[in-house]
Amino acid sequence: MSTFEKINKNTVVRAPKRGLYDQETIYQIIDEALICHVGFAQGNQPFVIPTLHVRRGDTVLLHGATTSRLIKHIQAGNEVCLSMTLVDGLVLARSVFHHSINYRSVVLFGQGHIVAGDEEKLKALEVFTERILPGRWADMRKPNEQELKATTVVSIAIDSASAKVRTGPPLDDEADYQLPVWAGLLPIQQQVGPPENDPRLGSDIPLPEYLKDYVKVKND
Amino acid sequence: MSTFEKINKNTVVRAPKRGLYDQETIYQIIDEALICHVGFAQGNQPFVIPTLHVRRGDTVLLHGATTSRLIKHIQAGNEVCLSMTLVDGLVLARSVFHHSINYRSVVLFGQGHIVAGDEEKLKALEVFTERILPGRWADMRKPNEQELKATTVVSIAIDSASAKVRTGPPLDDEADYQLPVWAGLLPIQQQVGPPENDPRLGSDIPLPEYLKDYVKVKND
Repeated sequence: MSTFEKINKNTVVRAPKRGLYDQETIYQIIDEALICHVGFAQGNQPFVIPTLHVRRGDTVLLHGATTSRLIKHIQAGNEVCLSMTLVDGLVLARSVFHHSINYRSVVLFGQGHIVAGDEEKLKALEVFTERILPGRWADMRKPNEQELKATTVVSIAIDSASAKVRTGPPLDDEADYQLPVWAGLLPIQQQVGPPENDPRLGSDIPLPEYLKDYVKVKND
Repeated sequence: MSTFEKINKNTVVRAPKRGLYDQETIYQIIDEALICHVGFAQGNQPFVIPTLHVRRGDTVLLHGATTSRLIKHIQAGNEVCLSMTLVDGLVLARSVFHHSINYRSVVLFGQGHIVAGDEEKLKALEVFTERILPGRWADMRKPNEQELKATTVVSIAIDSASAKVRTGPPLDDEADYQLPVWAGLLPIQQQVGPPENDPRLGSDIPLPEYLKDYVKVKND
């Protein structure tokens, strides 16, 4: 896989040793994150809106209501910035100064366009669903004409991106290691499930296999 | 507690019934979220950067290296947008269209200024540490002059804000409830701990009580 060119806007300025520019690292973080935060500007006014995302090749798909301010802004081709962040734990050092968190984050830049045509839009929604929950698409009632019209999918080509990653134990000043202060990690992770039946679920409808697998995989 | 005025920039346009403007709801979400995503614009170029935050009264504190692009931008008094998002689960409906996620998010707007003076800065760092990990401050080696100089704390007055919240089971079209499709929730939550000792931790240093409590409270 290739590497994103370091240009002004994607360069990790602070703690540059934590900056990573290879596609493999960046795409893994994008794929593991369930949501992203989308930044856009209207005049001098910045906005940051959380939303679900999935990657398709070198693009990121977002979807939303056709009337959504965010979607309309992206659809118009304006520059956006997306950020995905996975928090892995608190890093407790012996000094205040060296406290930190372990995390994996991506900041990416690009411009979007609408995924036009019902067939393309349906295909994109299928990709969206299957990336988040493999096996789900085949089960569900598909969108009717009105629902499809009410939904917009936009595709953002990843023009520039960088990742920033911190892992491992605290790194204290050498002299501080003799201090009688507990130091170490408080790991943080997202746990999924167990699934909860809809109160109106028919008693004859079992939990699908792909949901059992999903909970297992996500928590491993 | 009071309510934020609904103006153009903080009004929840999509799914307006999920928009909430009362301080109590908004402040609870800000306080539960460990990180926020900060949006700012330089010309037409939006940026979104993740960082730790804590609320102090009607302001949000951020900190970072004095050389940080984000911190310098906020310190200069530019308009910023902060977004905090807690993901509570996937909402699996019988139709594609009604799939959703349960979440609690806040979008807030304001301008920052530097927390000036060593005493004020130290106090702010203490608030920061104690909000994230109560009990920790007393234990640690405090910042020396050089470390304090290398750290900047900024305070952002919350000018405008709104929350958006979805809870509960899927809401399907009435006709779809008879479909033989599993529906319900996949809960998602952040789990903390157990604490992991620094490999260089002295064998005579026990886990502090506040860390045992922290893991318990966070996972309840």
